[in-house]
Amino acid sequence: MAGNTFGKLFTITTFGESHGIALGGIIDGCPSGIQIDLDFIQSELDRRRPGQSHIVTQRKESDTVEFLSGIFESKTMGTPIGFIIRNENQKSKDYEHNIDVYRPSHADYTYDAKYGMRDHRGGGRSSARETVCRVVGGAIAKLILKQNGISIHAYTSQVGDIKLLKDYHDLDFSKIDSNIVRCPDALLADTMIQKIEQVRKAGDTIGGVISCVIKGTPVGLGEPVFDKLHADIGKAMLSINAVKGFEYGSGFEGVKMNGSQHNDAFVSENGGIKTKTNHSGGIQGGISNGEDIYFRVAFKPVATIMQKQNTVNSKGEATEMMGKGRHDPCVLPRAVPIVEAMAALVLVDHLLRNK
Amino acid sequence: MAGNTFGKLFTITTFGESHGIALGGIIDGCPSGIQIDLDFIQSELDRRRPGQSHIVTQRKESDTVEFLSGIFESKTMGTPIGFIIRNENQKSKDYEHNIDVYRPSHADYTYDAKYGMRDHRGGGRSSARETVCRVVGGAIAKLILKQNGISIHAYTSQVGDIKLLKDYHDLDFSKIDSNIVRCPDALLADTMIQKIEQVRKAGDTIGGVISCVIKGTPVGLGEPVFDKLHADIGKAMLSINAVKGFEYGSGFEGVKMNGSQHNDAFVSENGGIKTKTNHSGGIQGGISNGEDIYFRVAFKPVATIMQKQNTVNSKGEATEMMGKGRHDPCVLPRAVPIVEAMAALVLVDHLLRNK
Amino acid sequence: MAGNTFGKLFTITTFGESHGIALGGIIDGCPSGIQIDLDFIQSELDRRRPGQSHIVTQRKESDTVEFLSGIFESKTMGTPIGFIIRNENQKSKDYEHNIDVYRPSHADYTYDAKYGMRDHRGGGRSSARETVCRVVGGAIAKLILKQNGISIHAYTSQVGDIKLLKDYHDLDFSKIDSNIVRCPDALLADTMIQKIEQVRKAGDTIGGVISCVIKGTPVGLGEPVFDKLHADIGKAMLSINAVKGFEYGSGFEGVKMNGSQHNDAFVSENGGIKTKTNHSGGIQGGISNGEDIYFRVAFKPVATIMQKQNTVNSKGEATEMMGKGRHDPCVLPRAVPIVEAMAALVLVDHLLRNK
Amino acid sequence: MAGNTFGKLFTITTFGESHGIALGGIIDGCPSGIQIDLDFIQSELDRRRPGQSHIVTQRKESDTVEFLSGIFESKTMGTPIGFIIRNENQKSKDYEHNIDVYRPSHADYTYDAKYGMRDHRGGGRSSARETVCRVVGGAIAKLILKQNGISIHAYTSQVGDIKLLKDYHDLDFSKIDSNIVRCPDALLADTMIQKIEQVRKAGDTIGGVISCVIKGTPVGLGEPVFDKLHADIGKAMLSINAVKGFEYGSGFEGVKMNGSQHNDAFVSENGGIKTKTNHSGGIQGGISNGEDIYFRVAFKPVATIMQKQNTVNSKGEATEMMGKGRHDPCVLPRAVPIVEAMAALVLVDHLLRNK
Repeated sequence: MAGNTFGKLFTITTFGESHGIALGGIIDGCPSGIQIDLDFIQSELDRRRPGQSHIVTQRKESDTVEFLSGIFESKTMGTPIGFIIRNENQKSKDYEHNIDVYRPSHADYTYDAKYGMRDHRGGGRSSARETVCRVVGGAIAKLILKQNGISIHAYTSQVGDIKLLKDYHDLDFSKIDSNIVRCPDALLADTMIQKIEQVRKAGDTIGGVISCVIKGTPVGLGEPVFDKLHADIGKAMLSINAVKGFEYGSGFEGVKMNGSQHNDAFVSENGGIKTKTNHSGGIQGGISNGEDIYFRVAFKPVATIMQKQNTVNSKGEATEMMGKGRHDPCVLPRAVPIVEAMAALVLVDHLLRNK
Repeated sequence: MAGNTFGKLFTITTFGESHGIALGGIIDGCPSGIQIDLDFIQSELDRRRPGQSHIVTQRKESDTVEFLSGIFESKTMGTPIGFIIRNENQKSKDYEHNIDVYRPSHADYTYDAKYGMRDHRGGGRSSARETVCRVVGGAIAKLILKQNGISIHAYTSQVGDIKLLKDYHDLDFSKIDSNIVRCPDALLADTMIQKIEQVRKAGDTIGGVISCVIKGTPVGLGEPVFDKLHADIGKAMLSINAVKGFEYGSGFEGVKMNGSQHNDAFVSENGGIKTKTNHSGGIQGGISNGEDIYFRVAFKPVATIMQKQNTVNSKGEATEMMGKGRHDPCVLPRAVPIVEAMAALVLVDHLLRNK
Repeated sequence: MAGNTFGKLFTITTFGESHGIALGGIIDGCPSGIQIDLDFIQSELDRRRPGQSHIVTQRKESDTVEFLSGIFESKTMGTPIGFIIRNENQKSKDYEHNIDVYRPSHADYTYDAKYGMRDHRGGGRSSARETVCRVVGGAIAKLILKQNGISIHAYTSQVGDIKLLKDYHDLDFSKIDSNIVRCPDALLADTMIQKIEQVRKAGDTIGGVISCVIKGTPVGLGEPVFDKLHADIGKAMLSINAVKGFEYGSGFEGVKMNGSQHNDAFVSENGGIKTKTNHSGGIQGGISNGEDIYFRVAFKPVATIMQKQNTVNSKGEATEMMGKGRHDPCVLPRAVPIVEAMAALVLVDHLLRNK
Repeated sequence: MAGNTFGKLFTITTFGESHGIALGGIIDGCPSGIQIDLDFIQSELDRRRPGQSHIVTQRKESDTVEFLSGIFESKTMGTPIGFIIRNENQKSKDYEHNIDVYRPSHADYTYDAKYGMRDHRGGGRSSARETVCRVVGGAIAKLILKQNGISIHAYTSQVGDIKLLKDYHDLDFSKIDSNIVRCPDALLADTMIQKIEQVRKAGDTIGGVISCVIKGTPVGLGEPVFDKLHADIGKAMLSINAVKGFEYGSGFEGVKMNGSQHNDAFVSENGGIKTKTNHSGGIQGGISNGEDIYFRVAFKPVATIMQKQNTVNSKGEATEMMGKGRHDPCVLPRAVPIVEAMAALVLVDHLLRNK
């Protein structure tokens, strides 16, 4: 109710502030008997980890997860899975000069107004550091999806105005992690990386788009009328820090089409029912139809810039401020595993709800 | 859990099929003492009603709501508000030739696969007729918002490739209902109407975009980390039939900007804190900051067209089908009050959650 | 959240006041394909109906349920089941002399204090008339339980100090409905009926106990640590009007036993695992173990008596009042189907949760 | 949904097994600005701690709680409060001889049947060790209640057949913790302690009753029709390990009364409305009326006894087993703070829900 729980049957509740003692969470509703592959979970955390390349924040965190319950002899027991990740490299001093200043386009002002107080160190609860817990939950969800033949493939498809125009069918998803920006097109990836380096040197930041394709979803996931599958995926994406938009299937471009062009004709194929085109994005009437689910997520440029900015303090007095410390010039590379994690959480939740 | 309830503290649960006996719902968590203006509620229903103009479906429904509980001497009592709307003009015969056929880009196939059966008459539960209940709930929510100084203004901003390019500050929202397509720019409205007439004559349909502006929201609404205000608005919009995308504030366009351009500088104004620009769309860190909230919603073209289409039946055999009966060539004009209703439901829910 | 929804996966949300237009509800999460036996549902309502005998209230209601959605060709569709029951025999005049008076041990005062207003006619929402909706939901739940081999048997086991001392194994449950007080022991039933007639003639009321036995529950229902099966059954019972206590298995008497006496030894029987005794009441660690579930529910005497009582009005001024109209001298006979309905709702919910 | 979360607005989700690495939880929905008194929280844990006297289990645990988030400069921030308590004195060896044996009246069999596996060490998740987390949550809830003038007083009122017959008004609650059995009547406390020592020496266990009085509750808490205040308190109590019954106000004894005796006459007192008697137990129509709330909770004898018992193993084969290790001969003394904690959680939840 207070907004820190996601999911209905397969739920994750998270806690933790950016510069607190630890972050962590509880995964509840996980079926028993799931084999837990700790190396895989850690590898997912490493994809999100700060300091993984020169185009992301240089905060040094091992992001090692400690599981405290719910797993016995490497298998889930059906009981809640508690886990923590201790913060190791907080540099709270980087924030001391800004204790009383509202950083532009950050959540300092709104948290203060809502709660009457906040942990000013590194954004506290509003920091994207919280997403580390989502990746833990998403990794366990992926282990379940894998057993069900479902795979999720997110990738950076746009940085600033550099946009990957290829249809996703023409991409090799196995190349996504072959470069530090996580774009499966090597050439465009280079251009994106150069762009990010450029804005970073200028003390600035840049936005972008992550695309995601889900393969192998069975027919029947989604609970109309309100919990349509795409509505829950959309909410999941919009809950990620810095996200400003979500579209699936034909999306905003599809509004220009006529129904006669947009409709996906049903065809019979190998004894099953498929569609000829897939403008629907794998979801019809809020329920998966067995085709690929694909969607796009818009990320705004990171708010922390290394430039002087005008703002006000908590008394409403005009002042100037400037970012200090270690920050991402572009959130996209590290957001790819977060998008996948949230998609995985939605899919597993709806797999269980459909039973 | 089964997907027919929306909201956490102010909830609406709906029931009803397109061609069943009645639709209805229960609004729970409504504060006591709210003055119920039945004329206003009916006027909202009239904005959504079929048959209201020649560019919408000609199904004849009075859409008269009967309240059964929760209201005493014109005031809410704090007890659940039950209501029904009887279907009056079902023409189930229009669907008899298609009982066993999966209409392209409809939910026939996915409902059959998920539930093992469905009411084939007019799409049953998957029909947008269900949204009549949302408008009832939204109207009551609007009565509460009005007391809190909050107003919601949705309008058709795009039909096919005809797009309203003006900034919303340059529009006169009082003109929204002055034309049948609900675009506050009279000239563009005419062009849109002609476009819709054109596709209708061709037996086709067309998509579009609805924009929405919320004024007067207090600072503090939204429950991070998962129930961010824009995440809940986004889910609300994506739960509406035919919606394919949602963006708020700078949206998909904003990804091209640098942080230094995108950041909204705080300024002191009349003793309060405001922002100079509003790329954030009135929400920062998932919490409203007191600025206008604005967003855009993409609607695909209606799936029912008056043209022959290839498809399969429930046995997977190839067949042909063609729409019959009364349908909307473009869903936008009638979707405007639905977008407002869903926005109102989210806002009231978060008003209560913030207490 | 506002307290009018029961259940997690199989939910019922109810609305309606005692003397309003109609009562009703929405059953959501009902599996598709359940054959709906309308005669059975009505027969359950008849067991709860006012006017069924001379020892219950003489209000004349047919309590005819109208289903509005969710059922197609006599089968559930997996979509929400909306239903209403119109009030036919409201006599609001019976309450006009008491508009401003707080009836002792009724909810007049607490509703006024909580909501700032109330429907004074017949107790409004606080009236046990609301339970008519629970019986509709419970009847559908029973249809599902029957398919799963589960049966529920509630009966009046105590009226005032007249107590049925026999072990439930020695009772013939088929005799429960053979008398108007619903006690399977004919001799004791007569004594109970005489007792109720006696208090009724004195303008007074009397309490009692309903016992309930559930047979055929599979092993595995219940979700520890908070949603233990008996905790959810207990809450269900305590939510019924006039209930003051709940105990299951050995209950309050069992506290006197030693562990060596109380423990239920496991034994092997026909290839399955059973227990020799059943002090556990069919539930161990919050999860059903396959043995009979049995429990007892205490009902206080009805608050409305035909005698002069001292009380205060809404201004806090001392006054006198006296009940008028048609009331139950003892709630037990009509509460038997309500106890069964609530038990059925819990069982079906946990059947689905256990999948 | 999986049963490890309690509450609606003020929620606690717990994790942890008896002999796992740690137990812990997340408290969500706690208002911001609450002063956290760590000494008080620890003192509450000490009241529940094993090894506190010779009549409880001798397992040695410091039960030190580590808070990981949600608290900044000793105040709650409105963000989720994560905490853990590491297990220090697991002696898993005590359970190795019973890995495959179903201990009578324990949850071994039902957990195995439900989840297909279990942590056999000390009962795993089904152990009452989990309640340590409830006491942490309850202690924070008590800090909030104290600010609202509400106090909770639980005490042992019966051990076996030794029953405290005094009315609670004649007890001195400040004496509850003055003896190791937590009965405010010193003389009876001695008798109870002797009784417990006796059964312990016999390798046996004994049940009992805890009574609880809540003072200072404002009028208006409780959400009818399903979430009546006593229904939520009842569920809270029934969710505690070993509880078999719950009654409030006049309870099971009250069923023998006539309405004319049972009704609580309203009287005017110091400008407020009070009742002359309080058979209602402080709750009318499911809503608190400002009078004392009082209730009784029945605990069965602990299942682990130091005597040879017949049982079966997981293959259903007959076998013998005997308890080993450190166990409570009577759960009552340590259950007193657990009853208070659960009551506190319900009260705070309903305080917030009533806003």
